[in-house]
Amino acid sequence: MLDFTFVSPTKIYFGKNRENEIGQILKAYGYHKILLHYGQGSIFKTGLYTKIINSLKENDIAYVELGNVEPNPNIDLVRKGIKIVKKHQIELILAVGGGSVIDSSKAIACGVGSNMDPWLFVTCQKVPTSSLPIGVILTISAAGSELSNSCVISDKAKHIKNGFNTDLIRPLFAIMNPELTFSVSPYQTACGIVDILMHTLERYFSDVDDLLFTDEIALGLIKAVIKAGKRVIEDPNDYSARATLMIASSFSHNGLTGLGSNMYFTVHKLEHVLSGLYDNVSHGAGLAILFPAWAKYTKKLFEKKWQYLVKVVLDATPSNATDEGISFFENYFKFLKMPTTLKEIGITSDRFVNFAMCATQNQTKKVIGVMPLAYDDVINILTLAA
Amino acid sequence: MLDFTFVSPTKIYFGKNRENEIGQILKAYGYHKILLHYGQGSIFKTGLYTKIINSLKENDIAYVELGNVEPNPNIDLVRKGIKIVKKHQIELILAVGGGSVIDSSKAIACGVGSNMDPWLFVTCQKVPTSSLPIGVILTISAAGSELSNSCVISDKAKHIKNGFNTDLIRPLFAIMNPELTFSVSPYQTACGIVDILMHTLERYFSDVDDLLFTDEIALGLIKAVIKAGKRVIEDPNDYSARATLMIASSFSHNGLTGLGSNMYFTVHKLEHVLSGLYDNVSHGAGLAILFPAWAKYTKKLFEKKWQYLVKVVLDATPSNATDEGISFFENYFKFLKMPTTLKEIGITSDRFVNFAMCATQNQTKKVIGVMPLAYDDVINILTLAA
Repeated sequence: MLDFTFVSPTKIYFGKNRENEIGQILKAYGYHKILLHYGQGSIFKTGLYTKIINSLKENDIAYVELGNVEPNPNIDLVRKGIKIVKKHQIELILAVGGGSVIDSSKAIACGVGSNMDPWLFVTCQKVPTSSLPIGVILTISAAGSELSNSCVISDKAKHIKNGFNTDLIRPLFAIMNPELTFSVSPYQTACGIVDILMHTLERYFSDVDDLLFTDEIALGLIKAVIKAGKRVIEDPNDYSARATLMIASSFSHNGLTGLGSNMYFTVHKLEHVLSGLYDNVSHGAGLAILFPAWAKYTKKLFEKKWQYLVKVVLDATPSNATDEGISFFENYFKFLKMPTTLKEIGITSDRFVNFAMCATQNQTKKVIGVMPLAYDDVINILTLAA
Repeated sequence: MLDFTFVSPTKIYFGKNRENEIGQILKAYGYHKILLHYGQGSIFKTGLYTKIINSLKENDIAYVELGNVEPNPNIDLVRKGIKIVKKHQIELILAVGGGSVIDSSKAIACGVGSNMDPWLFVTCQKVPTSSLPIGVILTISAAGSELSNSCVISDKAKHIKNGFNTDLIRPLFAIMNPELTFSVSPYQTACGIVDILMHTLERYFSDVDDLLFTDEIALGLIKAVIKAGKRVIEDPNDYSARATLMIASSFSHNGLTGLGSNMYFTVHKLEHVLSGLYDNVSHGAGLAILFPAWAKYTKKLFEKKWQYLVKVVLDATPSNATDEGISFFENYFKFLKMPTTLKEIGITSDRFVNFAMCATQNQTKKVIGVMPLAYDDVINILTLAA
């Protein structure tokens, strides 16, 4: 086990109707003026917007609104948010949505707190020094941004998508009502399930051995998500299964499943290139395509890890555990109706050169990982994903 | 899954030699004057005291000392600590030790913060309203108090041991170096292992079903502890195994393994009566005696839970899973050289009446649990533990 420092201070308010407590919660923390940040209008359709506004008004919480966060949140809207927050002397950013809205909120919060353009953080030119507090009302189980220290922002004009990490942006609180996710479409639900699994799989497949605690927690979480995922696809209103996905989304990405391990997130890095280049690719779908290919390409490195995963998750001890394990996930993703090849999303082999150049910054860098990926490795993985 | 509110804000500094960072950490938080609270002198023998003092001095942290915390920490020393803290205007209580020292620190911290005698909290007459911050340097893996919201204090003159819970007393930070536990005796190590297991087992055996996430996390933690426990008994200097126990001690009792469940802690309640009446009984040893007896007495209630536990933890699906499961833990406790009968610690059946009267407050109350225990139930359990 490697040395580590870990903090996950977010307070979770979990359960039915807890979104109605938002005004009360903010008041108890002593906040009076917030930015209400949300996405592309689903909160109007579901009635969530009205519930929030009522609770804010009842508790004398002033608010300024900023909607229209897109999937793969864009730096332009973040900059607009920063202006609004400064102008109105906002005290807290309330993200109502999923990973995109939360990440947009995080970028605004630490842009204001540090008094810097957050694109400097995304491009590793500066490090955030402070952040406004962030609150969350979660509406989709996927990114885990509600508890995580990470933030991913795009510059769509430049086709760049990148992230940064700092404990300063871990949300102060997160309200999680699984019922709010009943209306999430099967496709988005599936994307979320893949993302949750991948946050844990990327931590599990590390170069650190003998992680008794961490590996059991990681594999336990994966087992729970696989079961809950099956149930939610059968019955979108299965409360226990939706609750499992919601809580798993949070703990898959707050650091718990990687304590004392090395974390590279190689498949996520490839996926960021993919969805940076092709804006129509959902993050979860991109991961579903790239993980099996990456796993096949690196399988010699992780035989022991695959063996234990297959034993615990699939309750099996086959001689070809690695192949069985990879094929299990490939089939599970197919069951979720996720694409598992690039072809299915319209990306043909003539695009691979551009992708691999992007991923390796024109062959000047390798994609980090237990096996760092040079240009040729990326091409090989794309070929396996073709 | 039941609704819940959960927060575990403690920052963990985990790894080798991290105790040397104490002065620096306190300085970064902005503290200048602390109470250095510790037990009965092992920190002098191991050299830990000198390391801490050096780091405090290097970082200009002033300190007042209060040692001599006994196992089952006593209210008298807590009251003494409160006087010292008020007199010297202490800003933070630094607990160097295990559960007893941390709990003593918590009682002092929220006694001062709330300006009330903490015995009022223990006896449920008052609720804490505020607390000084608490820091921890952990020296034994057991109680999990380093992350928990609970505090157990005794009034030894009155033979009473009782606890209270509040998120106000969750420590601000905990420094955890597994090497500091290499010198913990086999007996104390074993007591710790039982305590860690019990914190999770008491949460697992609840009356809430369909806890996909929580059950997997709980059973994963139990698996890891059982493995690590075996290794530590073989080799007390096994770093990975000691690290596993340390991190598991923390996460077994911060609430993670019981998310969305009901928590009764029936066996702990019985054990508090036991070690309240007989001061020479270690908490872990008391639990090792009482759990198998309680499990046998309540087994009809938990057949499904036992079945799944045996499947996951023992990788077996016998028809008599409950008996197999109970007997596994009984044997594991014996392997750890823990007592598993009251006779072994010199408690004979003539004491049972007194015990059961105490546990049921002279037959006016039941011990809470999925099966609440009346006087006769307690007698029956003690008879099974005889």
